[in-house]
Amino acid sequence: MTRIDLNCDMGESYGVYTLGFDQDAMPHVTSINVACGFHASDPVNMMKTVKLAKKYGVAVGAHPSFPDLVGFGRRVMAASLEEIKADVTYQIGALWAFCLAEGVKMQHVKVHGALYNVAEKDLSVATAIAEAIKAVDPDLYMLCLANSSMVTGAKNAGVKYVEEAFADRAYTAQGNLVSRKQEGAVIHDVDAVAERVLSMVKTGSVTAIDGAKVPINAQTICVHGDTPGAVAMIKRIREKLDHAGVTVKAFGQ
Amino acid sequence: MTRIDLNCDMGESYGVYTLGFDQDAMPHVTSINVACGFHASDPVNMMKTVKLAKKYGVAVGAHPSFPDLVGFGRRVMAASLEEIKADVTYQIGALWAFCLAEGVKMQHVKVHGALYNVAEKDLSVATAIAEAIKAVDPDLYMLCLANSSMVTGAKNAGVKYVEEAFADRAYTAQGNLVSRKQEGAVIHDVDAVAERVLSMVKTGSVTAIDGAKVPINAQTICVHGDTPGAVAMIKRIREKLDHAGVTVKAFGQ
Amino acid sequence: MTRIDLNCDMGESYGVYTLGFDQDAMPHVTSINVACGFHASDPVNMMKTVKLAKKYGVAVGAHPSFPDLVGFGRRVMAASLEEIKADVTYQIGALWAFCLAEGVKMQHVKVHGALYNVAEKDLSVATAIAEAIKAVDPDLYMLCLANSSMVTGAKNAGVKYVEEAFADRAYTAQGNLVSRKQEGAVIHDVDAVAERVLSMVKTGSVTAIDGAKVPINAQTICVHGDTPGAVAMIKRIREKLDHAGVTVKAFGQ
Amino acid sequence: MTRIDLNCDMGESYGVYTLGFDQDAMPHVTSINVACGFHASDPVNMMKTVKLAKKYGVAVGAHPSFPDLVGFGRRVMAASLEEIKADVTYQIGALWAFCLAEGVKMQHVKVHGALYNVAEKDLSVATAIAEAIKAVDPDLYMLCLANSSMVTGAKNAGVKYVEEAFADRAYTAQGNLVSRKQEGAVIHDVDAVAERVLSMVKTGSVTAIDGAKVPINAQTICVHGDTPGAVAMIKRIREKLDHAGVTVKAFGQ
Repeated sequence: MTRIDLNCDMGESYGVYTLGFDQDAMPHVTSINVACGFHASDPVNMMKTVKLAKKYGVAVGAHPSFPDLVGFGRRVMAASLEEIKADVTYQIGALWAFCLAEGVKMQHVKVHGALYNVAEKDLSVATAIAEAIKAVDPDLYMLCLANSSMVTGAKNAGVKYVEEAFADRAYTAQGNLVSRKQEGAVIHDVDAVAERVLSMVKTGSVTAIDGAKVPINAQTICVHGDTPGAVAMIKRIREKLDHAGVTVKAFGQ
Repeated sequence: MTRIDLNCDMGESYGVYTLGFDQDAMPHVTSINVACGFHASDPVNMMKTVKLAKKYGVAVGAHPSFPDLVGFGRRVMAASLEEIKADVTYQIGALWAFCLAEGVKMQHVKVHGALYNVAEKDLSVATAIAEAIKAVDPDLYMLCLANSSMVTGAKNAGVKYVEEAFADRAYTAQGNLVSRKQEGAVIHDVDAVAERVLSMVKTGSVTAIDGAKVPINAQTICVHGDTPGAVAMIKRIREKLDHAGVTVKAFGQ
Repeated sequence: MTRIDLNCDMGESYGVYTLGFDQDAMPHVTSINVACGFHASDPVNMMKTVKLAKKYGVAVGAHPSFPDLVGFGRRVMAASLEEIKADVTYQIGALWAFCLAEGVKMQHVKVHGALYNVAEKDLSVATAIAEAIKAVDPDLYMLCLANSSMVTGAKNAGVKYVEEAFADRAYTAQGNLVSRKQEGAVIHDVDAVAERVLSMVKTGSVTAIDGAKVPINAQTICVHGDTPGAVAMIKRIREKLDHAGVTVKAFGQ
Repeated sequence: MTRIDLNCDMGESYGVYTLGFDQDAMPHVTSINVACGFHASDPVNMMKTVKLAKKYGVAVGAHPSFPDLVGFGRRVMAASLEEIKADVTYQIGALWAFCLAEGVKMQHVKVHGALYNVAEKDLSVATAIAEAIKAVDPDLYMLCLANSSMVTGAKNAGVKYVEEAFADRAYTAQGNLVSRKQEGAVIHDVDAVAERVLSMVKTGSVTAIDGAKVPINAQTICVHGDTPGAVAMIKRIREKLDHAGVTVKAFGQ
């Protein structure tokens, strides 16, 4: 039976600042990546996010970042491998405690923003992240961009992993994400995105921006919850998958 | 058989900044309270501190604080109970991950600085801290100032706890610490301090500043490691205890 | 001729986080209090806020806070007078540079949140703030809550000052703000608020919550810009004042 | 008459953390670069540093950095030009206020660490920094690494500038600094360093690591104050210069 997970970044509010439509998106996804205070979130918000996930039976993962709150973790920093490992470990742990407090088992780790962008290209960084994850708990999954260095890093470290595809992003003929700077990089049509996700799940491939079919071995699809339109898109994807008989379920369950 | 634990704050360096004589003090104490990034320390330093403790078989505890790096956690903040619980949980977790990565079981939690000062007097804060600790792991000990609200808070929450006395601080006839602002609050003579510790351990009481005998039910003694003189004092205390046949051992072991 | 200033907190966005309706509110106020990075805002946002104020000819002031980004500066911190003076100086300076870069003369300083709440009651804090302001530039005005310790502090330090009243807050018979925890503390009816402001401006007094008339010597009225409803309220106040022939103008112009 | 300035980083302590030998080094240098809170320092410490400089008649400059306290500003961050300009402006301003409060005229701006390393190679960054400085005050000098993009950036922006050489660093035949990773990059012999400085001042050139003579047009020499040995080196340099009749004086005086 075909199955897939829908993962979404959550818990990105900070103090008085609200970001994202967590309440609206939570019921429709199966895994969440919770900000851990380095690019977004704070302890109270992390606690609330874990509680909300628990309420809906959504699997919880940590979403560690470079330490750059003002830049929302989107700026590459020349951190050493030791610093990256320690920063990732720290952030996993911070969320881990809220999971313990709520009796929720943490499922995975997905690095955020600029750290994700570095890890998808730099194998030494990807491997360092994978090692950090495995050292904390060998049951944790590393969430890897399909066809990227992250997958190799996860294999190197011997950590459990899943590969992810993006619902609304165009792919190159090599199976990589088309740069956001390029036209057509982001697909906005809700039906087209839903159709695309279903196709990835059923065929294990995606139509690249040049029309080629490229293999995408994804166990999870990244969706967004930070605009009202994004929530509508998640719902549409989910309906499409449900209607096609695809099981939508957290990969670790 | 008489036994006691010696606990010491450690891991208080931050980035390029060095604080404390962790390398020198570590071999002589039995438990450490590791700063978790809110008043001091950073992920790399926490990792190194846990490794160092492991090397010497010293028990590890978290040392959570108000979020005030520039003030070293020494300034009382009007945080809500929800914020305090979440902040404590976050910091325990951050250290927890380094413990998991090193295969070290975290023994305890001792709150730091201004948060300690609030918790020793404010039962609602003490109880909130105790609840946060227990929710993360009911095997964790809360380290409480003897004869303070912390003990009541720990009892309220049903968390495991130990009581601590201070090696070099004077006590009132009521068994409370003499304010640092008062003359004679801190005892500097190394031999007097060592003698005092031995007496507390053997008799379960201490001579107050007015000469009265007051009961102190301490399972752990707080010592300092932030000056070279402090390390000499720890060694002297340890020698005294060893010579008197007192077992110096982490309370959780 | 009767005149009044309308002051509003602005520039409270941070990184990716947006707060307040600065674009909508700016054309309708005459002075703004710009967050300086300690409770909200960041350098890019401060630069944009000063540019926006300049565009509309709105007078600029600094809005320093305790260093508590996650708590939005709303939590009292036990900072020393030396720390408060240095923190206020630092934040005035940070904004000062953006004013210099835009050729805008900084008009005033109004402390934020918990620091405001402390300064209105604690004369030593109010005086320290006033001294810090005067030391940076004796041409700066200190914005003081009418009938509070801030006014005395400003007088003590010999700094220029203005007194402020709140458009939408109830007053006690002693001329102090009714605590937000008390019912009726905040007035929500737009017309009532506008009428109240006009009355304060024209009569130099306000009807207290118990019906008494209390004197309020205000040169500026604090309005809010953080909800769409708040902007509508500012417009209504302004219309009312304009219609009554009151000159609405920055106090320093 | 030959003259030179000796500049030194100062005010790098933070909260309870002490860094550098400011008290010892201050009497022997003529300009200081004061950390502004982004890589080191805090408001109280900045205030004290400006007071200390004033006491010794030492010229004060700002030392802005990427926002990276834990990394001491040594990690390159992919900040945008707008962010860099705003961050530099903010930090200049923060120090500016302490200068105003002490009646000290700020002399210059020297960017710190990773931002310096980027600016010496990336002309767009160097130009952005120069524009930010000039916008705050066209009387401010930009302190530029001799023979680097900083000089071109300063010229592009039309800001006043001086060039600096390093007392204890080896140079390539092209007049650039030998990478610290290379052997011989740092010269430790005190007399050799002093001789080298004198030679740079008198001949406007330096002997490169390969023996070639390369021109260095320096109006200021960077010295260090962060070790006791460093202070001895400053004194030796100063003696050498004094003895040779070179006027050691802040470049802006």
